[in-house]
Amino acid sequence: MIRAGIIGATGYAGAELVRILLGHKDTEIRWFGSRSYIDQKYASIYQNFFQLVDAACMDDNMEALADQVDVIFTATPQGLCASLVNEGILSKCKIIDLSADFRLKDVAVYEEWYKITHKAPEFLPEAVYGLCEINREDIKKARLVANPGCYTTCSILTCYPLVKEGLIDPDTLIIDAKSGTSGAGRGAKTDNLFCEVNENIKAYGVGTHRHTPEIEEQLGYACGHAIRLSFTPHLVPMNRGILVTAYASLTRTVSYEEVKEIYDRYYGKETFIRVLEKDVFPQTKWVEGSNYVDVNFKLDPRTNRVVLMGALDNLVKGAAGQAVQNMNLLFGCREQEGLDLVPMFP
Amino acid sequence: MIRAGIIGATGYAGAELVRILLGHKDTEIRWFGSRSYIDQKYASIYQNFFQLVDAACMDDNMEALADQVDVIFTATPQGLCASLVNEGILSKCKIIDLSADFRLKDVAVYEEWYKITHKAPEFLPEAVYGLCEINREDIKKARLVANPGCYTTCSILTCYPLVKEGLIDPDTLIIDAKSGTSGAGRGAKTDNLFCEVNENIKAYGVGTHRHTPEIEEQLGYACGHAIRLSFTPHLVPMNRGILVTAYASLTRTVSYEEVKEIYDRYYGKETFIRVLEKDVFPQTKWVEGSNYVDVNFKLDPRTNRVVLMGALDNLVKGAAGQAVQNMNLLFGCREQEGLDLVPMFP
Amino acid sequence: MIRAGIIGATGYAGAELVRILLGHKDTEIRWFGSRSYIDQKYASIYQNFFQLVDAACMDDNMEALADQVDVIFTATPQGLCASLVNEGILSKCKIIDLSADFRLKDVAVYEEWYKITHKAPEFLPEAVYGLCEINREDIKKARLVANPGCYTTCSILTCYPLVKEGLIDPDTLIIDAKSGTSGAGRGAKTDNLFCEVNENIKAYGVGTHRHTPEIEEQLGYACGHAIRLSFTPHLVPMNRGILVTAYASLTRTVSYEEVKEIYDRYYGKETFIRVLEKDVFPQTKWVEGSNYVDVNFKLDPRTNRVVLMGALDNLVKGAAGQAVQNMNLLFGCREQEGLDLVPMFP
Amino acid sequence: MIRAGIIGATGYAGAELVRILLGHKDTEIRWFGSRSYIDQKYASIYQNFFQLVDAACMDDNMEALADQVDVIFTATPQGLCASLVNEGILSKCKIIDLSADFRLKDVAVYEEWYKITHKAPEFLPEAVYGLCEINREDIKKARLVANPGCYTTCSILTCYPLVKEGLIDPDTLIIDAKSGTSGAGRGAKTDNLFCEVNENIKAYGVGTHRHTPEIEEQLGYACGHAIRLSFTPHLVPMNRGILVTAYASLTRTVSYEEVKEIYDRYYGKETFIRVLEKDVFPQTKWVEGSNYVDVNFKLDPRTNRVVLMGALDNLVKGAAGQAVQNMNLLFGCREQEGLDLVPMFP
Repeated sequence: MIRAGIIGATGYAGAELVRILLGHKDTEIRWFGSRSYIDQKYASIYQNFFQLVDAACMDDNMEALADQVDVIFTATPQGLCASLVNEGILSKCKIIDLSADFRLKDVAVYEEWYKITHKAPEFLPEAVYGLCEINREDIKKARLVANPGCYTTCSILTCYPLVKEGLIDPDTLIIDAKSGTSGAGRGAKTDNLFCEVNENIKAYGVGTHRHTPEIEEQLGYACGHAIRLSFTPHLVPMNRGILVTAYASLTRTVSYEEVKEIYDRYYGKETFIRVLEKDVFPQTKWVEGSNYVDVNFKLDPRTNRVVLMGALDNLVKGAAGQAVQNMNLLFGCREQEGLDLVPMFP
Repeated sequence: MIRAGIIGATGYAGAELVRILLGHKDTEIRWFGSRSYIDQKYASIYQNFFQLVDAACMDDNMEALADQVDVIFTATPQGLCASLVNEGILSKCKIIDLSADFRLKDVAVYEEWYKITHKAPEFLPEAVYGLCEINREDIKKARLVANPGCYTTCSILTCYPLVKEGLIDPDTLIIDAKSGTSGAGRGAKTDNLFCEVNENIKAYGVGTHRHTPEIEEQLGYACGHAIRLSFTPHLVPMNRGILVTAYASLTRTVSYEEVKEIYDRYYGKETFIRVLEKDVFPQTKWVEGSNYVDVNFKLDPRTNRVVLMGALDNLVKGAAGQAVQNMNLLFGCREQEGLDLVPMFP
Repeated sequence: MIRAGIIGATGYAGAELVRILLGHKDTEIRWFGSRSYIDQKYASIYQNFFQLVDAACMDDNMEALADQVDVIFTATPQGLCASLVNEGILSKCKIIDLSADFRLKDVAVYEEWYKITHKAPEFLPEAVYGLCEINREDIKKARLVANPGCYTTCSILTCYPLVKEGLIDPDTLIIDAKSGTSGAGRGAKTDNLFCEVNENIKAYGVGTHRHTPEIEEQLGYACGHAIRLSFTPHLVPMNRGILVTAYASLTRTVSYEEVKEIYDRYYGKETFIRVLEKDVFPQTKWVEGSNYVDVNFKLDPRTNRVVLMGALDNLVKGAAGQAVQNMNLLFGCREQEGLDLVPMFP
Repeated sequence: MIRAGIIGATGYAGAELVRILLGHKDTEIRWFGSRSYIDQKYASIYQNFFQLVDAACMDDNMEALADQVDVIFTATPQGLCASLVNEGILSKCKIIDLSADFRLKDVAVYEEWYKITHKAPEFLPEAVYGLCEINREDIKKARLVANPGCYTTCSILTCYPLVKEGLIDPDTLIIDAKSGTSGAGRGAKTDNLFCEVNENIKAYGVGTHRHTPEIEEQLGYACGHAIRLSFTPHLVPMNRGILVTAYASLTRTVSYEEVKEIYDRYYGKETFIRVLEKDVFPQTKWVEGSNYVDVNFKLDPRTNRVVLMGALDNLVKGAAGQAVQNMNLLFGCREQEGLDLVPMFP
């Protein structure tokens, strides 16, 4: 039995981790960490867990936690995990960090985009970027996994095959992303009130969103050189889901079949990436509640561009689901364990 | 392995049956019946099942189906199941009918409220009303199970203990129910278009909704005599969920503890009925995607009334989930098999 | 030109007052009061008013305000208006209070339900309850108008004719109300976040909601004696709108035509109350953005009850629209001035 | 008094025309055309107009209509207006066509994208493209106005100044557009059911949407040569609103102030185009119910691109509002008459 602890268990990603781990036959949650709700019954914060979780919330003591569990999930704002982790902890248990602290290899880039000082840069070299389908073997051997961002997972998996194959010019990449509101977290902010989000759509963080350098770094590895792309997130009046629509210029004339063959080659054996059939475009609802990413593409010979599309559930494949997938890799479980979640429609 | 066939597999309830049965370790779906989509890939109708279901849609041939499966689910409009069923079929396999055809024991009542002639009244006596928590033992022995309506399940389970105990006067019962839009089905009607439902709430079927006599019949059994109550359904701009708010006059002065003890006595051992803690009122979101019914009550000494509240997911405990629970009872499976679904929030 | 000042201009009701008054040809807004946003451009808080309102937010100084305007609207939490008002102010200008401070004539009832001490009980006798269709003549002569609550307006106008005519037994009245989320205000609370409200419905304040005694007092005037009724509000995932479904026992057998005639007699000449045609039930969307209340009823001979239904826009007829209607009465304007708002659909 | 007739009065755009014209002091609607609802009360189809519109629906007889009105609005599917219009009709009254029939000057392009034969190509030369802010003077003299598409209006107005000034390379233009569901019309299609649209976002018509050539033609006029751009529409779970996010490469280094000055120069005197302040990005909710287009831009020196954003209400400035603005120009009314609509928030 894998003993798991969660720091930040009362955020939406933390609660989704609980939902998924309750269905994972080899895991037991030992610690529901939540600074804001210490000693309160966890199920009184998330009544969906009434009679399913009996525990009360604990504090954020990572040292104490490391003695009691095999894996710690940190579903907390950036900065916290880096401020708590140390060699002693990592020698006792694995850490899967759902925050951004260990995603970017370059401290300077992190500090520029996040406007905070990195507290544990010494662990950046060993941290493995937990995009399972791409870094599977490295993840298996890691102590510290940097679980990718929600927008990032969707953007990278959607574009990766064509970037890697050199079929698109990565410097022409424009990623227009749309997210449900759970991605904004559970903080009580006016901007996230029902009446402000409902019946509304807006772009935000235009030119400055922090997932931009993360996408650039990973796709840069794919094509072998640093790239710069445009990334614009939008807030959509729905709870869950990210849809990425990406545009890029083709480097040569290609047929539908040729591109399809590439996607199938990269993803055909992946359980959680579904390459849709011709002219069926991803919809977030078709993956809701599951760990799937649905991807597809459309060639536009008029403009010599290709439009790439991907959809996932930001709380599952974009956060907690991928974290569990990483845990499965770390502990040698079946990669799909706990993640055999059929999308819920409608 | 239980071999299951679904007639009406492309309605919302049918699709939810598929979602649940895919996670049921002892069942295999052999027949995806859908007159409207014969020969089309089932997963092309519900893309959430892409790569999960490979089958194509079949017709409604119950005779042929009876030779190939152990259980038939009919998730079809009223009248169809009654027009197809016969002794030969029932001698070969079990039927769980999600329509209203076998819910009301009195043919005259059925024909009055549904405005159609009943085609198979001869099976009414043996049909068992499939409200598992109340008729568990009878269901185990049945050949034909009448799966209860969504409003009905929520209304009855919410009110049953106090009616049965004689604590409320059943003739003062007023049930005000609110439902998500999936209850209206997948038919292409103007009234169910996004722009008509969104940002809107309305009552419908006031005084005439067909679930009324079904609630009256079942609660009548509980109190031992025929009753008449008011039932008003409302359409709410959300996909899933039913909330019932019921009002009744108390027959005597009671304390919170006394009423709580009754609910706990009736439902304390039931996996799928959760009696919430004091002053925590049910919310549909807390049961979404699961087979739970959350219930609670509030005494109002000012008016000598009690307000009873219940919430469930209309497609799960209100339809497909309860159907699977019935199947588990029929075939001696663990009652929760396939239904260990943790509610999804948000 | 009527000079108007608003205290609490950055709440939803305050902003709706601004929207309506911008279209009122005889009024000019001189003061946008908002303690939280002093000196900030009003249109930077509500960007819908960009280029329409140039003013910055002011503080809550009612004394200063009284010297500059003819009418003060207080769209603030309970307690504030009562703590600021005095004879000097009332001798200089009219006050229309959108809070609860002057709605209940009995201080003890106010203090019991609102749990605060009333700071200006001396003005309770002269305050006029601003339900225009019922108290029109008294309003015209008032200095201080208590603008009714949103649930209250909808509940009273829906039930008033039959209570007044003695056709229903007021002690059997059960009012089940459903409200959009703007009624909860713009405060940054977790419970009102998009992800908590969306895809969800719940009852709240069961048996304890503060609009209960207000409804009871006003309907008590109608029938001539004190009454007690059940009132349950629900939160619906939509921005605007209140739907009331009320149930009551009939005191005698009546026909549809008889009841219809009563409604027409009471409301036939009222611009803002629309008695719908037979079997057309109110929907909140049909009145959205307007000052209309749509009402109708359904006789249920099975139970000897009548179901009464009413719908309005909680921010218009339930708050700001009614406040402007009161202002029009106070200042002798055409009662519909500024309120010729056609409902927006969809 | 301008006498107006509407063909297609029961679609969403037609109903919005009615809403707006009811508030237009110089216009009277004489004809509510709707083939599907002939002889039914118009207000029984759109209950928001109960007691506001007394007329019944008429057929589509444009000949008869031309004798009775000064202006005909056709809010119908493509092909209908072109099949009905003739010289006799145009000699009697003005036509404002909300369909696509007269938007594209090149018949071949129309027939390629719309897959139908154009029935009245002889009127294409005289038809004026009714984008008021750009073609104001031509519109005043027209007999036949082609009212622009919703996506088109938003896309063109957002990009026009920078294309016209040569500040962006039009062949790098990528327009990612998001629309509320009313843009899909009131036809009863499964894809537009509440449960299919709600909690979902998808791209559609990728590479093939019919507004593409319309945007290309008009922006081509602005830069003086034919262009090809990428346009992708998305369906968003909200009733109203279009948000356009457009990306283009800058032709030279520019400052924020320089670009702002250009937008102000083009739009500073336009009532209905609001250039937002620095780093305030358009949100559809801020223009809901009004004829405004909110636009802004963000320079991204990292990629040498500019991100252009625009938001409007697809039924107002994207359809009926612009049609009325065109009517005002045609008949010499104040351009804002009937369009002094303050956006409704929330």
